[in-house]
Order: sequence, then C-alpha cells, then structure tokens
Amino acid sequence: MAEPVTIVVDAMGGDNGPEVVLRGTHAALEADPDLHVIVCGPADVTGPFAAAHERCRAQATTEVIEMGEHPAGAVRKKKDSSIVVGCRLVKEGAADGFFSAGSTGACLAAATLVMGRVRGVKRPALGQVIPSYANPTLLVDVGANADCKPEYLVQFAQMGAAYARAIMGVESPRVGLLNIGAEETKGSEFAQATFEALRRDVPEFAGNCEGGNLLAGDFDVVVCDGFTGNVCLKTLEGTAKTLFSYLKDAFLSSTKSKLGAVLLKGDLSALKAKVSPDTYGGAPLLGVKGACIVGHGSSNELAVKNGILASATTVRSHVSEVIAGVVAGDAR
Amino acid sequence: MAEPVTIVVDAMGGDNGPEVVLRGTHAALEADPDLHVIVCGPADVTGPFAAAHERCRAQATTEVIEMGEHPAGAVRKKKDSSIVVGCRLVKEGAADGFFSAGSTGACLAAATLVMGRVRGVKRPALGQVIPSYANPTLLVDVGANADCKPEYLVQFAQMGAAYARAIMGVESPRVGLLNIGAEETKGSEFAQATFEALRRDVPEFAGNCEGGNLLAGDFDVVVCDGFTGNVCLKTLEGTAKTLFSYLKDAFLSSTKSKLGAVLLKGDLSALKAKVSPDTYGGAPLLGVKGACIVGHGSSNELAVKNGILASATTVRSHVSEVIAGVVAGDAR
Repeated sequence: MAEPVTIVVDAMGGDNGPEVVLRGTHAALEADPDLHVIVCGPADVTGPFAAAHERCRAQATTEVIEMGEHPAGAVRKKKDSSIVVGCRLVKEGAADGFFSAGSTGACLAAATLVMGRVRGVKRPALGQVIPSYANPTLLVDVGANADCKPEYLVQFAQMGAAYARAIMGVESPRVGLLNIGAEETKGSEFAQATFEALRRDVPEFAGNCEGGNLLAGDFDVVVCDGFTGNVCLKTLEGTAKTLFSYLKDAFLSSTKSKLGAVLLKGDLSALKAKVSPDTYGGAPLLGVKGACIVGHGSSNELAVKNGILASATTVRSHVSEVIAGVVAGDAR
Repeated sequence: MAEPVTIVVDAMGGDNGPEVVLRGTHAALEADPDLHVIVCGPADVTGPFAAAHERCRAQATTEVIEMGEHPAGAVRKKKDSSIVVGCRLVKEGAADGFFSAGSTGACLAAATLVMGRVRGVKRPALGQVIPSYANPTLLVDVGANADCKPEYLVQFAQMGAAYARAIMGVESPRVGLLNIGAEETKGSEFAQATFEALRRDVPEFAGNCEGGNLLAGDFDVVVCDGFTGNVCLKTLEGTAKTLFSYLKDAFLSSTKSKLGAVLLKGDLSALKAKVSPDTYGGAPLLGVKGACIVGHGSSNELAVKNGILASATTVRSHVSEVIAGVVAGDAR
C-alpha cells in the first residue's frame, strides 16, 4: 500500500473544460487506490462529481482565473478562484499537493505567494521532463523566471538533481547547462558566468548541452533561464507537433500511402505516445512548499490523469524536503 | 541570361571533407551557367578540380582553420587560410560572394573583419531560413551575437525584412519577435524593451512569435538575440532529426511495418527533403559587404550546391546594397 496522499485538482484549469479535467481525475482515482482528491471549482461542477466518487470531496469556489489574465494581479484579486483556494488548501494542510492545467503564470504566482517558497530557495522554477527514447531529461526553468542570475541556475541545478533522484530514479544525475556550444568558453556573458558558478557549486555539473542534444539523453537535468527554456521547450513541442501533422498529410496523399499508414498505425501511435507531453502530465514547480504540478492548457484526459498521479508521486517522494536539505546545505 | 557572378568556395569547409564540397561545387556550376567559382584550398585539392571545370579557377592556400579553434584568434593568425583568403578575394573585388561550410565562428569573424560591415550596421547577424510547409521563416540571429541590445534587434529586423523581400520574394514581410508569450507585456526585460523598439522603428513589426509557432509560417522574419536563436534553431533541427530516426526504428520494427514503410517511402522522402536544412543550403550573414553564406558543418553535396547557388542569388539581388539603404534611412 502506498502512502495516502491528498491532491487538490483545479477543475476549472485547461482549455478543454472541466469535463476533461474530471474525467482525468476519475482515471487517476481508479489508478491509485491511496489517492484522495479535492476538486476545486463551482459547486454545480464539483459537487456531483465528488458525490459520485469515493476518496473525493468538493471545494466550492466562485471565481475563475482566465488564461489571458495578468497572473500576479489575478491571484491577488481573485481570492476565491480555484487556483488560489487550491494552493491555500495545501498551505493549510488540508491537502499535500496541487494540480492545475490552468494559467501557468497564475499557478506559479499562487503557489509561490500562497504555498510559499522552501526556505533558502531564491526563485522557484518550472521543470519539464523532455521525453526521449534514450533517457528523459528534466529541463529547468521552462518559464517561471524570464530574467535570471547565475546563482538562480545553481539552485535550479540542485533542485533538478534532487527531483531526478527522487522522481526519475536517477542515482547520479548528470546536470548540463543549455548553451550554444559544447566548449566551456562558449555562450553569452550570462552563460559563461553560470558555467563557472555551476562548476564551483554543483558536483553533478557535467558541462554544456546544445539545443540539438536535448533529446540525446546525455544529461538528466539541463538548466537555463526561463526565457530560453520556454522558447526551447515550445520549439521542441511545436516541431514534433508539426512533423506529425506533416506525416498525417503524407499518409493521406494517395491510396498507396494510406495502405502503408494502416500497416504502420500501431508503431506510429506508440511513437507519438512516447514523445507526447501528455505521458508526463505536467511541469513540476520546484522550490515551493508542497507539490505543485502545472499541466498544459491543452491537457487531455490522459495528461490530467498523469499530472495528478505525478503530483502524488512528488508528495510521496518528499521532493520539497529533499530540496530544503540541499539548499540549506548550500547555505552553510 | 542571369547576371554573371563569382563566388569563392572554401574547399576545406565542412566535416565531410573537400570531396563533398567539390562535388557540390560541380553541381552548382552545372545548375547555373552564369556562375563562376574560385575554389580556395591546398593546391593539390583545388588545382585539378579547377583544371577540369570551366568557369572555375583555384586559389591555393596553405592553412586551414579547424572547427574547434577560437574563431577571432584563428582568423588573425591564419592569414593564408581558405576562410581568410576567401573573404579577402571578395574584399578586393575578385569575387562577389563567399560560401563555406567550415567553422561558423571563423566565417563570421573573417567576413566581419576582412569583408567589412555595411556602413551603419552595428552587428552583422546570421540568418537561417526555417523550412515550413506553410511559409518559410527567416530566423535572425542564430548565433553571431550571443549578447545583444534592443537596437541590434531593430537592425536584425530591418536586414531580415530586406532579405525576405530580395531573396524570399515576400513583398510585405511580417516581422516577429521571438518571445515567451503572444501578449506585448510578456518576456524578459530585454524582450520587453526590444518589443517597444521594434514597434517604434520597424514598420514591418507584427508582434511576438512563440517558439511553438515558428513553423506555423505566421511570420516571414523572426528576430532574437543570437543565444536564444542558436538554442532555438538547434532544438528545432535536433527534434526533427531525432523524430525521423525514431520513425526509421518504428519502420524496421516488424515485417508489417517494413511493408508499410515501403509503401510510404516516396512521401516520406519528399517530407524529409522539405524540412531538411540541406534544401536551403546555408545561413546568410546579413550586414557584411558582399554575400557570405555559411553552410552546416555536416553539409552534404546538395547542401553545398544550394549554398553556392543561394550565394549567387544573394549577390544578384544586391541584398547588401538594400541593407545599406535601409540602415542609412534609419540613421536619418
């Protein structure tokens, strides 16, 4: 039996509406018998769902933070939104972690302001596991901090290594710096200063990683500022999505190709699932107290399910406590 | 008949050896009857090739700049290298443009130092045409300037728009800023300041472009600092390459899939060619006097051929002169 864990799920998060989030929640409850869920959202949406499920209760909220709103402003103003209330339930100890596929910015702001930072953490950072055949790689930061200092990236590296050990099962994580060349003298002034800081302060640091090598699996964790990381992640996802849509067009171009596509269907579906972000279900916000995982706005049922299960795993692995230990060690 | 043009080709550039470069040069000479070529490199490599080809002469050089050398240092030291001599031939008027698949950094340094900047251009920038079904997009800068100021990106936008008009055949180019959100308030401090400068100084500016939308063809030119651009370009190319290799594995996984792959072969080859960087043959260095195009180190024969032909087109379109006009207009 696994440790019982309670995760708050933001029923209003995501572009596909609460039905998809609730179907994903249902699937997560089925998959993990020791998972408890609090669904946050309007009473008419969450009440009937909770009534129909064991290990589930509803928390009625009256406000919703929309995708386009200014994150910090919305978090301050909408105290009864599903995102703010969800983070407060974790803060107050009613739940252990929070999952939302809503506004990433609002989740970051709410988690940082309401749940609070782990003592010693300068900037919480958003990680994203990049799927790869070779070896998955955690990219940190993928968008929480557009402007960074080298010392932030040192902590991203420490937090990422802790996450890789606790969640990804990597005993000796290799940490890379996202840079524009393999040699240590390469890169912007910021990248060069960060290289030095990582070499000095992070025993797991193993050198520069170029954009083209992210999928090679040479590193378990790759750190960068949140601007570069966000551009990089979206480019990677956009390229994969575009190529699959090109493939689909190619498959439909003739009778011959359609027949070929039928024969390949199973293999292609397996490949698509392997590289799909839905398989990983969301991005962990590293450095806040308690678990917070943010799903893609476009999360489908599977992504929501996996995001909730990943939140439970994050809680059970005590990642926040491990990070607290690492960062405190750094402050000695 | 097209305007006669002379392009210097660095026979020593590229990871695949001079044979591949010379085969590509041969193909370019075949394809363009008004193209003249000077092949630069050791006499025993370039002499026999030039003797065997019309419209071709050899320029013997004794030094080679290796891929790993410090670019500016190598350019200063190795005065008789194929890259430095090639750029000098353009500077002296013996040739109109230069093509190399050698060290990008050394080509940038030599072109900037030897050929010289267009008057008024603060920083020459490396562009790369991103292939897309919808509409190709020129990304600038993909690595010449790791550290940038907003005013550099204003010039990248002006130079990119000039290139899009002259070479890509786009009458009214739409210029985007690579950023981490569509809204104008998004991004790092640098991105926000650049957004303001572009809106003020570049009539073609049409807003932010996220990494995931680069392949959507919404913009003809997308500008960014050379650090972000290099990470983005390499991520894009690396993702495409990895997915194609996964596909190949999937196709070989069973007898059924092998049969499917045979039926799809033609369509897949067409798709691969469409998205391959080889089709575009290289990256133009914008803002230097005369044409300079840098090919991938891994350039094959086709990429070399297309890079040389693109160099000729760049010369015939008088891109440098157009850029000089635009930048001078800016300085008024």
